[in-house]
Amino acid sequence: MSPVSDEKSNPSTQWTKKDLLDTESLSREEIELILDTAVPFKDLFARSVKKVPSLRGRTVVNLFYEPSTRTRTSFELAAKRLSADIVNIATQRSSIVKGESLIDTCRTLEALKADMIIIRHGSSGAPHFLAERSPASIINAGDGAHAHPTQAMLDLFTIREAKGRLEGLRVVIIGDITHSRVARSDIWALRKLGAHVAVCGPSTLIPNHIEEMGVDVHYNIESALPEADVVYLLRIQLERQSRGFFPTIREYSNLFGLNLERLGLAKPDALVMHPGPINRGIELTDEIADNPRALIGEQVTNGVAVRMAILYLLAGRRGAPPRDETE
Amino acid sequence: MSPVSDEKSNPSTQWTKKDLLDTESLSREEIELILDTAVPFKDLFARSVKKVPSLRGRTVVNLFYEPSTRTRTSFELAAKRLSADIVNIATQRSSIVKGESLIDTCRTLEALKADMIIIRHGSSGAPHFLAERSPASIINAGDGAHAHPTQAMLDLFTIREAKGRLEGLRVVIIGDITHSRVARSDIWALRKLGAHVAVCGPSTLIPNHIEEMGVDVHYNIESALPEADVVYLLRIQLERQSRGFFPTIREYSNLFGLNLERLGLAKPDALVMHPGPINRGIELTDEIADNPRALIGEQVTNGVAVRMAILYLLAGRRGAPPRDETE
Amino acid sequence: MSPVSDEKSNPSTQWTKKDLLDTESLSREEIELILDTAVPFKDLFARSVKKVPSLRGRTVVNLFYEPSTRTRTSFELAAKRLSADIVNIATQRSSIVKGESLIDTCRTLEALKADMIIIRHGSSGAPHFLAERSPASIINAGDGAHAHPTQAMLDLFTIREAKGRLEGLRVVIIGDITHSRVARSDIWALRKLGAHVAVCGPSTLIPNHIEEMGVDVHYNIESALPEADVVYLLRIQLERQSRGFFPTIREYSNLFGLNLERLGLAKPDALVMHPGPINRGIELTDEIADNPRALIGEQVTNGVAVRMAILYLLAGRRGAPPRDETE
Repeated sequence: MSPVSDEKSNPSTQWTKKDLLDTESLSREEIELILDTAVPFKDLFARSVKKVPSLRGRTVVNLFYEPSTRTRTSFELAAKRLSADIVNIATQRSSIVKGESLIDTCRTLEALKADMIIIRHGSSGAPHFLAERSPASIINAGDGAHAHPTQAMLDLFTIREAKGRLEGLRVVIIGDITHSRVARSDIWALRKLGAHVAVCGPSTLIPNHIEEMGVDVHYNIESALPEADVVYLLRIQLERQSRGFFPTIREYSNLFGLNLERLGLAKPDALVMHPGPINRGIELTDEIADNPRALIGEQVTNGVAVRMAILYLLAGRRGAPPRDETE
Repeated sequence: MSPVSDEKSNPSTQWTKKDLLDTESLSREEIELILDTAVPFKDLFARSVKKVPSLRGRTVVNLFYEPSTRTRTSFELAAKRLSADIVNIATQRSSIVKGESLIDTCRTLEALKADMIIIRHGSSGAPHFLAERSPASIINAGDGAHAHPTQAMLDLFTIREAKGRLEGLRVVIIGDITHSRVARSDIWALRKLGAHVAVCGPSTLIPNHIEEMGVDVHYNIESALPEADVVYLLRIQLERQSRGFFPTIREYSNLFGLNLERLGLAKPDALVMHPGPINRGIELTDEIADNPRALIGEQVTNGVAVRMAILYLLAGRRGAPPRDETE
Repeated sequence: MSPVSDEKSNPSTQWTKKDLLDTESLSREEIELILDTAVPFKDLFARSVKKVPSLRGRTVVNLFYEPSTRTRTSFELAAKRLSADIVNIATQRSSIVKGESLIDTCRTLEALKADMIIIRHGSSGAPHFLAERSPASIINAGDGAHAHPTQAMLDLFTIREAKGRLEGLRVVIIGDITHSRVARSDIWALRKLGAHVAVCGPSTLIPNHIEEMGVDVHYNIESALPEADVVYLLRIQLERQSRGFFPTIREYSNLFGLNLERLGLAKPDALVMHPGPINRGIELTDEIADNPRALIGEQVTNGVAVRMAILYLLAGRRGAPPRDETE
């Protein structure tokens, strides 16, 4: 059964991984399978009944150790549009974790027969730790500064849909590269699909040896933008300022904020992207935020489609328990 | 398809508005259509399966910028009993809004393909702002001191059901009229349906020029109650006392609290209503709260039915995307 | 209709009680009916579609006056796997209760046509208070130090499943007996099913006259463990220390913490249980927590099955409104 019709070919039988932890360990074929599977799910959103019965009766847990309404809501909608049962656990107010180690929380969720656990955690590696110990499929919804693979998948989907391809495109990522799990996951995935990637930001916010990931490094935006097909702006965490990574928000904005004039340095059809939520007047001006070339809303839409594809593929992976539909 | 049976006449095709923002802009016919549509939904609650598939696969968002378990729960149940998928976003703990303007939140929800957004907001006009910018149907669940139209619809439903009509009835609204979106929405709606409305409260809590809304004004309860068919008590926001609007809670209760003796001034079959939650011993005595003539619980029941009717009508409005049921 | 198949015998027609408030008032037959009904629900968890339509269209409310992610999530999954509609109300952040008495909250939930209310409350007797006043089925999810009957049912299910019986077994409950609703509910239920129960803990944490419940009392663990079939460890509330009930956590752990050596005093096939979440190094060592004889995870799994059984039996009780399935 294909996601939304009765066709014979079933993309999920091509998938084998139990978990989605990062983009570094994905093959080009796996990334393309996710992107291809998301296409019919996105088509579904044009209907009034934005829903398929694919994961009826499956139990999905949203386990968020950091607050994030955007990502939590996107996964919640993805699960509901697949007809899964989803439970939200936000650990700021959760006794499941108070005085309980991650391993014991993991065992509790296993005992509750969670089929899939979507985890966001402040510590890099927490999702890997769960994945090794849990029979459930673990989806990393962001771990420390390490990885945010579903964000990368939606970013690639958005670029591919707008440009028709990823191979050979030049993507310039601007902002705080050092602390960005989004940048890290996007770089791995874009490189595998054959895109050229440049990173750009203040030297205090670009990690040493980043060139080893196969990217160009620019410390000023004017040298980074020429020939760009995609300008990808990272969100500035305003609370970082006090820790001395950059002098003032104003200075960051002056040097690295995107405005129409600077966008003119990129290719005439260059796209603007941002993982959201945007800080207007900091990473970008209003005229950029409200420009048709900015695909920020499209990224949000695609996020639900890509997350549906990921839940669908993981649930139906080869070797997974068979789908019975009897009651 | 009618809401709960297979009859031919479909009330929703008579509805044209995308949003429900206030009662001022509703016609008499629109109000009656909402009330009529709610009747079969209320009948549904006597069944064990309190559910119809009308809005299956629709995405409804509860976007609450002020805490309100009562109203949030009522809308959540209304959506679930229509088989819609509903997501709660409470912005006290929501990063969707932290550092994000209402317009960007609106775009995010649009991108998530929300069909309907139920919004409660401390600022008057926030729902209108959303409605002008969003393709989703916006339902105002209370904005500042401006409007609370679903409360007014459930109040009218309750009166009409108990009295058989609204035309010609005398409704006395008692309390803090100045700060009450409930009073404002009820006055507009009751006047359109032909009821007489009087307001009553301390002069500090009755706005100037309120007579222009077509209501009588009373500064003491003894002069307001005679000939009343309905005595509608507003909730006193206890925190208002410190701001000097009235001297003490005790004095308010002495002058404007409803007790059995005072209720005796109204018509013998006068009803008592309150939007809840009640403050026993302040707006009303226990003997009033627990009196069969008090319809406070009935208002809560009717709230779910009326909200189902509103969700149903907005989703099926003329010009809305067609309802496909194929998968 | 049996819970998960089309067989003729329907366990729910044997059930008559509207509410589940404690284990003291349950008969042996009622306890066995709950345990028997939970068996096919647990079998369901081995399927990919972990769901039956039994309670479709029913409204269940999780009303939690104390935070508890574990118990709230277990009931939420139980309701969803029965296809009921469930609404969570956590009163820390709830205006439904702010300035509203329990009786008025009860009336509000009645008016919302809640079929079942699951309540956790800090005051003993709050669920009984609701049960007397509400037509809804009330399920006690823990009230003060009084009762936690669904925990007792899952504990009995777990023991019966592992040992094949309850009659004649020796169960030793270790910890803060005085403040434990779990201990109280387990003692009543185990005694009714014919198990022998011993309690063990510091004298400051064992109530006077507990012998009248038919249990043995031990003040040191070495005298309590011999001949034990089940060693049941209660969670130590770390905040109790400051109130002087025991000198230090370290001393508690030295005297009453379970380790492998002490477990050797019990029968060779003795089981270890704990209601969770565990405090490693306090009530038990890692080698106990991670031992195959510890059934802590199994208790969590069984909790969902037992809660499904309870919701199912209460909804289908003799004298309850008939189940119509028409729409």
